[in-house]
Amino acid sequence: MKDVAALAGVSPKTVSNVINGFVHVTPATRDRVKDAIRHLGYRPNTSARNLRRGRTGMVGLIVPELDIPYFAELARCFLEAAAGRFTILIEQTLGEREREEAVLAALGGKVVDGIVLSPLTLRGTELMDRLAGTPVVLIGERPSGGLADHVAVDNIRAARDAVQHLIGLGRGRIAAVGVRSEPFVGTPLLRLTGYREALHAAGLPGDRGLECETPGYHRRHGADAMTALLDRGERPDAVFCFNDALALGVLRVLHERGLRVPEDIAVIGFDDVDEGRFSVPSLSSVSPDKTAVAERALALLQERIETPSAPVREIVIGHRLRVRESTGVREGTGTGGGTP
Amino acid sequence: MKDVAALAGVSPKTVSNVINGFVHVTPATRDRVKDAIRHLGYRPNTSARNLRRGRTGMVGLIVPELDIPYFAELARCFLEAAAGRFTILIEQTLGEREREEAVLAALGGKVVDGIVLSPLTLRGTELMDRLAGTPVVLIGERPSGGLADHVAVDNIRAARDAVQHLIGLGRGRIAAVGVRSEPFVGTPLLRLTGYREALHAAGLPGDRGLECETPGYHRRHGADAMTALLDRGERPDAVFCFNDALALGVLRVLHERGLRVPEDIAVIGFDDVDEGRFSVPSLSSVSPDKTAVAERALALLQERIETPSAPVREIVIGHRLRVRESTGVREGTGTGGGTP
Repeated sequence: MKDVAALAGVSPKTVSNVINGFVHVTPATRDRVKDAIRHLGYRPNTSARNLRRGRTGMVGLIVPELDIPYFAELARCFLEAAAGRFTILIEQTLGEREREEAVLAALGGKVVDGIVLSPLTLRGTELMDRLAGTPVVLIGERPSGGLADHVAVDNIRAARDAVQHLIGLGRGRIAAVGVRSEPFVGTPLLRLTGYREALHAAGLPGDRGLECETPGYHRRHGADAMTALLDRGERPDAVFCFNDALALGVLRVLHERGLRVPEDIAVIGFDDVDEGRFSVPSLSSVSPDKTAVAERALALLQERIETPSAPVREIVIGHRLRVRESTGVREGTGTGGGTP
Repeated sequence: MKDVAALAGVSPKTVSNVINGFVHVTPATRDRVKDAIRHLGYRPNTSARNLRRGRTGMVGLIVPELDIPYFAELARCFLEAAAGRFTILIEQTLGEREREEAVLAALGGKVVDGIVLSPLTLRGTELMDRLAGTPVVLIGERPSGGLADHVAVDNIRAARDAVQHLIGLGRGRIAAVGVRSEPFVGTPLLRLTGYREALHAAGLPGDRGLECETPGYHRRHGADAMTALLDRGERPDAVFCFNDALALGVLRVLHERGLRVPEDIAVIGFDDVDEGRFSVPSLSSVSPDKTAVAERALALLQERIETPSAPVREIVIGHRLRVRESTGVREGTGTGGGTP
């Protein structure tokens, strides 16, 4: 900035005034400063307003894996919700503790004004310790102990709704795909709880043999789990998958095995990603209001940045059931005024 | 840092030495400084090594849309290729000029050491102007005039390979889905060129009525284009889609219309995304070596950061054809040692 001032023959304060768009600079001076800025390739690295308030205007969005479609779609919702207010910097942790710590260390401090985090390994006080005062809103997993603002669907209820839908179709041997026993916490545990509650409420016997663990949440993990289940001789009449990617892997295996969906086995997922509207058959799913997740999370974060001492809030986001072909409804792609 | 020094009763230089891990600090002093850092919540915002070199250790990866699966998978490849060297900050531009400019302005300057950019609207000198000296490597689109390092597949040849594969199946009325006429540049133009070249080389008449424009590269755009084509009474015997997302939309429409793939219409995409391995039918595709894109781009960027004046380089990445059910090969999910 000093070089710009020297070249333009003005004070650094005047350069700052031009950058900040203050009106008490003559047009001639403004032009001279702008020419000097261009000539030197000088870039103020944040907007004027943010500079004045000691902010960067950037928010970190930290998710486990962008190639799980839910997180890619969520990232777009954040981009759209942030328009004109924040620049969203996206980071992936792959659910690995070391990477989660490294990302928090890299983004903290001076880079972002705040963080929206979908945590997988860091929890409770340990997590707050790593954040060291950076304003944060948690999404997805339920944080231990209400230490930070949190935005999420009611995972237990949403899972229960999905399984009740399957029970309503007359299905009684319902498998769950996506169980995690290590660590036995977070979203998978909540969805398993909702699954068990729905079975129990309907007087159906739970069968641990139908609760399928997966080492991850990609299509291949769903395909592997379904293959293993069928190879064990199990024949469920419905499957509740803890996300859509798992369900799409399950659909592929059922197709290869010659099992009809939904006639032989009904399948429902969770996330309502775009892919499930185009798959064959199209995929029924629990649809969390992703736009609301992004909007509410950014609103909370903005408030947290302004008022660090505000009380911690817990926001529950709505969800709906999207019933498509995989649980029985024949439909089009929505091209020309259709369904999804 | 001054506060930390005061609380620990040492000089700021000593604080810096502790942060940088220098050995000539006594254990007692080190502990005192670390206690003060913890107590004050002080965070040096970059690693010690980067601090010494005036770097942040962060690289911006700027892509059009993460909910186009290719870019989400590419982002993961970058994350894996960067491990231990860079922190990757991901940005989406939605292919909008204003957002492209805003992202470059936000990331430039002090935030990142360099940028990997998949540009859509900014081109040539205009683009270099906006970058204003920030080290950059371009991926995807061919930059005008060799102004920056560039890593990409040979899009013309890859498209030609895909269409030659369809011709080899005996197909002669081959549609192209994903044409852009505005702006008539970049990757879509290269893939269209390859498509036309393959038809020409085989002595097949080109038919502009089979070249389908799409306003974007999502599944719904492929579905809409295929619907419009069929509604016009066209009946191609094969379709080459400029990306897999378009092809997955096309597959859905063909299913709804009762057209058999590949018997009635063979379909091939471009990108080889995970989704196409699990779709029904599974999707044949041109597979660019995404890992190589990420590794080569980061290697070039590293060199560009070290040596800003090095000559500009153009790297061509390899590609392969992945033949699956949508052009005739029956296969499994790869579970248990299978195909993809």
